[in-house]
Amino acid sequence: QRVHRIAVIPGDGIGTEVMPEGLRVLQAAAERFGIGLAFDHFDFACWPYYERHGQMLPDDWRERIGGHDAIFFGAVGWPAKIPDHVSLWGSLLQFRRAFDQYVNLRPARLMPGVRSPLVRRDGTPRAPGEIDMLIVRENTEGEYSSIGGRMFEGTERELVVQETVMTRHGVDRVLRYAFELARSRPRKHLTSATKSNGIAITMPYWDERVRAMAAAYPDVQVDQYHIDILTAHFVQRPEAFDVVVASNLFGDILSDLAPACTGTIGIAPSANLNPERRYPSLFEPVHGSAPDIAGRGIANPIGQIWSGALMLDFLGYRQAHDAIVRAIEVVLDPANGGPRTPDLGGHARTADVGRAVADAL
Amino acid sequence: QRVHRIAVIPGDGIGTEVMPEGLRVLQAAAERFGIGLAFDHFDFACWPYYERHGQMLPDDWRERIGGHDAIFFGAVGWPAKIPDHVSLWGSLLQFRRAFDQYVNLRPARLMPGVRSPLVRRDGTPRAPGEIDMLIVRENTEGEYSSIGGRMFEGTERELVVQETVMTRHGVDRVLRYAFELARSRPRKHLTSATKSNGIAITMPYWDERVRAMAAAYPDVQVDQYHIDILTAHFVQRPEAFDVVVASNLFGDILSDLAPACTGTIGIAPSANLNPERRYPSLFEPVHGSAPDIAGRGIANPIGQIWSGALMLDFLGYRQAHDAIVRAIEVVLDPANGGPRTPDLGGHARTADVGRAVADAL
Ligand SMILES: CC(C)[C@H](C(=O)O)[C@@H](O)C(=O)O
Ligand SMILES: CC(C)[C@H](C(=O)O)[C@@H](O)C(=O)O
Repeated sequence: QRVHRIAVIPGDGIGTEVMPEGLRVLQAAAERFGIGLAFDHFDFACWPYYERHGQMLPDDWRERIGGHDAIFFGAVGWPAKIPDHVSLWGSLLQFRRAFDQYVNLRPARLMPGVRSPLVRRDGTPRAPGEIDMLIVRENTEGEYSSIGGRMFEGTERELVVQETVMTRHGVDRVLRYAFELARSRPRKHLTSATKSNGIAITMPYWDERVRAMAAAYPDVQVDQYHIDILTAHFVQRPEAFDVVVASNLFGDILSDLAPACTGTIGIAPSANLNPERRYPSLFEPVHGSAPDIAGRGIANPIGQIWSGALMLDFLGYRQAHDAIVRAIEVVLDPANGGPRTPDLGGHARTADVGRAVADAL
Repeated sequence: QRVHRIAVIPGDGIGTEVMPEGLRVLQAAAERFGIGLAFDHFDFACWPYYERHGQMLPDDWRERIGGHDAIFFGAVGWPAKIPDHVSLWGSLLQFRRAFDQYVNLRPARLMPGVRSPLVRRDGTPRAPGEIDMLIVRENTEGEYSSIGGRMFEGTERELVVQETVMTRHGVDRVLRYAFELARSRPRKHLTSATKSNGIAITMPYWDERVRAMAAAYPDVQVDQYHIDILTAHFVQRPEAFDVVVASNLFGDILSDLAPACTGTIGIAPSANLNPERRYPSLFEPVHGSAPDIAGRGIANPIGQIWSGALMLDFLGYRQAHDAIVRAIEVVLDPANGGPRTPDLGGHARTADVGRAVADAL
């Protein structure tokens, strides 16, 4: 039996609280489906490590986790809410680039027992599954660049410049991933986020590559919207979207907005993929380290658990993925009276939910 | 009596249909409040002009409209839904830069009789006025830059680069406007949109200037959110926001998302301001030229009318502004049985609504 080596990085804040539940469910799935998983734990990429070492990552972090089959990540950011610069948050961005995780994949799906802040045009709530989209975000280049700088520092003439860089290599490979994904789904529908009417150099190039790629996927229905009106459509008619592909920045925005629309931002998962499997891919919940509730054992572990499901899917175990998502739905469905953490209006603790999902498997 | 000279540019599509109603209500307000308004009509900045002349604007457009006190604009973009590049849309961007309209101001307000796609956490709809925010967008620099280009064209190595440019002059002046505006409102609350954890050069600079400016406004309560989570907050708790200030791109996104949250994107107004009044400011509805319903006389003119109210406010007639907004609310309120265009579930025509608002004044 093949054994997949998983690097486990809990991070800080509630990351350390939801991780054990993510692992619990992974282990249960591994047993049930006969999957070989071996976990190595790492204590870096978190605030406590930063406090001790003055840096987020050890110098040899690439060697230490670069040979694993996947990285299972918790959350990082505690206790700073918004740091002045990226150093604290940088580790995630470093992983993405060093391990060429050029696809960021985030599902946004209406789940049973989770209230969406949106209603249909007639004022009624939507049914579970009625919104079901996948955001595919370019995860290595684009607007997140390190090129640029400041001039006339400290004077009235002060200015800053930062360059957005898009390469054909970088754009085409994420588009190809998105087109393949759309093709594999029943609706075969792909939406591209653009802003070619305002961002006059890079975004028209993005559109050009979308058109070129679309020619190779005649079976996929493609449309595109400017990012401004696209965010409006997300709140007005979210059920219209299937796969949505976007640049690094637009994808960052849409992949928070979409789970907010389904009410699942606290439980949504996220995959940072190197589809060629040359480097480990990283799986993490969308939520942050939530300093406000950290240390109380009441964080909702479903985002971590769902991220584990995405990991198994990527490792080749689609059945195990589907079973975990179904188990999550069983626990969330109010009809079953399962445990709910306070964010979902219940009184359960983190571990109660983890155990319930493992049992439902 | 001072006479304000208004340049009227209806544009194309439904722009030409809603403009007469905007003018009708302006004229009614001018009579009632004794305001001197003189209108000059211009036929450029629209698709028909482009078809005839191969360009959107005459060569001497600056001279022809630059001396006016304000520009009252309809909509442009018909019949192309998404053009390949900005040339078709460029006139608005050219006005903003040439006339240094560095503030883009967009109110998003829950109106009576207009259904918001959002509900409260308990599933109930929010009441009129419960969401009431003003988006202040930087309108001349930032991500909308013309610097950049393409390399290795047509090869596998092809890449594009585009530069975001923020200047202290440009950032400070829009922040100052936003802080003053927040100070003038009962809640005195300002939210700044950032993304300093990912856009590592320009956005930390933006944050730095926000902090510097905040020191001069101790009475204004300031917070900041990364743009990704901010869009999520807009759908989760839109009532929490008062004045929101953002860069050109982030402001573009938020000022479509916010009126989508209030259900008013079809009727929201927009002001492009040169607060120093060295150049004319421009007032236009948020909606586009709506090719799908153009020519049928059923477009909702309220965005145009509300934009006229913003124009009167900027020209110094706050009372007239308030009266028009109240008249709009009277017509929209289902209790009064006023005319409603099809977008609001009625059968009225564009002119019916314009007349009703003028009468309600
Ligand atoms: C048409 C387009 C260039 C414009 C913009 O992005 O500024 C529009 O979306 C707006 O918000 O006025
Ligand atoms: C923490 C931050 C740098 C990161 C990003 O912007 O990519 C986060 O928002 C995300 O989406 O994973």
